[in-house]
Amino acid sequence: MPDLPETSGSVWDLETPVLVVDLDTAERNLRAMQQYCDQHHLNLRPHIKTHKMPLLAKLQLQLGAVGLTVQKLGEAEVMQDAGCEDLLLTYNILGAAKIQRLARLLRRGKVQVTADNLPTLEAVQQAAQQAQVILPVHIEFDSGGGRTGVRTAQQALELLQFIQNSPDLEFAGLVTHPLTAQTAERVQQIQQAFQGTPIPALSVGGTPAARTAHLCPGVTELRVGTYIFNDRMMVHKGAATLQDCALHVHATVLSTPEPGLFILDAGSKTLSSDLVSGCEGYGLVLEYPEATIARLNEEHAMVTLPAGQPAPEVGDRVRIVPNHVCVTVNLQDTLVLHRSGVVCDVQPVLARGKVR
Amino acid sequence: MPDLPETSGSVWDLETPVLVVDLDTAERNLRAMQQYCDQHHLNLRPHIKTHKMPLLAKLQLQLGAVGLTVQKLGEAEVMQDAGCEDLLLTYNILGAAKIQRLARLLRRGKVQVTADNLPTLEAVQQAAQQAQVILPVHIEFDSGGGRTGVRTAQQALELLQFIQNSPDLEFAGLVTHPLTAQTAERVQQIQQAFQGTPIPALSVGGTPAARTAHLCPGVTELRVGTYIFNDRMMVHKGAATLQDCALHVHATVLSTPEPGLFILDAGSKTLSSDLVSGCEGYGLVLEYPEATIARLNEEHAMVTLPAGQPAPEVGDRVRIVPNHVCVTVNLQDTLVLHRSGVVCDVQPVLARGKVR
Repeated sequence: MPDLPETSGSVWDLETPVLVVDLDTAERNLRAMQQYCDQHHLNLRPHIKTHKMPLLAKLQLQLGAVGLTVQKLGEAEVMQDAGCEDLLLTYNILGAAKIQRLARLLRRGKVQVTADNLPTLEAVQQAAQQAQVILPVHIEFDSGGGRTGVRTAQQALELLQFIQNSPDLEFAGLVTHPLTAQTAERVQQIQQAFQGTPIPALSVGGTPAARTAHLCPGVTELRVGTYIFNDRMMVHKGAATLQDCALHVHATVLSTPEPGLFILDAGSKTLSSDLVSGCEGYGLVLEYPEATIARLNEEHAMVTLPAGQPAPEVGDRVRIVPNHVCVTVNLQDTLVLHRSGVVCDVQPVLARGKVR
Repeated sequence: MPDLPETSGSVWDLETPVLVVDLDTAERNLRAMQQYCDQHHLNLRPHIKTHKMPLLAKLQLQLGAVGLTVQKLGEAEVMQDAGCEDLLLTYNILGAAKIQRLARLLRRGKVQVTADNLPTLEAVQQAAQQAQVILPVHIEFDSGGGRTGVRTAQQALELLQFIQNSPDLEFAGLVTHPLTAQTAERVQQIQQAFQGTPIPALSVGGTPAARTAHLCPGVTELRVGTYIFNDRMMVHKGAATLQDCALHVHATVLSTPEPGLFILDAGSKTLSSDLVSGCEGYGLVLEYPEATIARLNEEHAMVTLPAGQPAPEVGDRVRIVPNHVCVTVNLQDTLVLHRSGVVCDVQPVLARGKVR
């Protein structure tokens, strides 16, 4: 396996491009969010989409998380296989194959689901019947994010009535992503439409607004993923500082073909093409904060420097804070874990690529 | 393995999101490019970055390709392990670990390299010494693409002199990517600077301008990758038609939460965030050509429809032509191969994620 990093020595000696995680920083981030949740009596249910690995999911559970959030069945299967209990699958399930896979998950452990439409409720009801369990279902509502989630209280009521009329389903609460300034009002509208039916739980998602969750009436649970590593987007949104960014991409300068330009060995296959609204470029080069990762192709980053700035030489090494750490991790087979720059583990990204 | 597609039946019954390749179309694309090269006495050296799998690389070789192009050592290792001979590694190699890996490749089979700077020449010289071979090296020059590649004939001359003074290296020719209207002039300048040293080969890359290669004086070799599958970018650039697009992403409508919006189960983890300059959105939905894939998150595509257009229902299935097929393939563990919609094979994307 010549392209696997070695499990000893300095992160600065690893072949590049490579993603390295400062475990001290990641653990500090985990503890801080758990402390916030404990302080405000909120359940913390971390989303595994950022790290995608059982090792770190188990650390989150040990520190006090009530369970995990997953989006795809494949992610749920990886986490259940690893012994992680109490999964919330926040994704509309549809189709015979997925119903079977959900039923299998339900037979094996505690799983809750979400839905924003009737065909999905019919599908998860079938899975519950196959597994012979009563399945807790959360109704997903939109808080202005424009993704999945019912748009009106009337839509939510129709879903509630389906759940209440189904002997296989149990109304478990409301979920939304992301938490916004509109969340409280939307919940209130739904509550009115429900005419006295209690809402057992209100689960909100997203690292950027996470620390405002206690200000939104009725919130019982926080779903966050990015907070473990953070990234340039979180720094830009004020949800983290650069010191809170636990994951760096190490890259090597491959070419300095003209003044004001250097080229790194990390392209879109390493950094992804995700941009941060309001920020230039495809990541932040820590050693050259004035530089811009102006263009990517699959294996190269073209980095421009303002005139007069000192430039690196071919062979020099830099660290990049990626724009969006979740998709960056999804591109890798392994993450290197370190403390103070000393490699302590190389972990497979077991839930990588689980799009089904 | 519940998330692997089955190797029989219709592609329309596969769990989504899933990437399916119409082998008839792919083979037609391969034959057409080989025919173009044969007609103009050009060597065809396909880039494996698009399909990333030995099965299709071998098909390219069987149809007449002289060898393969790879960018990363990990890609070279996959192809060499699969028995593919004659690899051109078009990437600056640097660092002790990569020198060792290159030496191993050189001991095992025919490999040529490229370089655009002296430290890379020193590195590949070390690999040649370790392997005890004389290594053919191509000098990479820029044709205006602004990526790697020397910018001046003087820079090229310095590299030539290093190669000529090294007993371990052999000057094999010039390479550039992409082929542009400036390529011929740049080659002429380098030829003048070389003062009579013959240029044994001139290799140009890129599907968009591929069929103009015979118009550029001195071109001996064409390196193309995307032509096997094509994508929305190639259609936009006029290098292919929609009928030439061999790879489709099948996706399912998960939610229709408001008029004018439907949400698919294929997000940036399936389609990538790559955009096409001059096109809106993250891919083309074949069944809804008036629709725009306006936003992606990791697992959802938010697709907008103009007012009055018929909308799909939850559970409906659509086919997407991705913006950039190479990065889309890189996100998948497997590709499903079919003929006329009947699944005939499921192939692992063996060279996926080889960023080192």
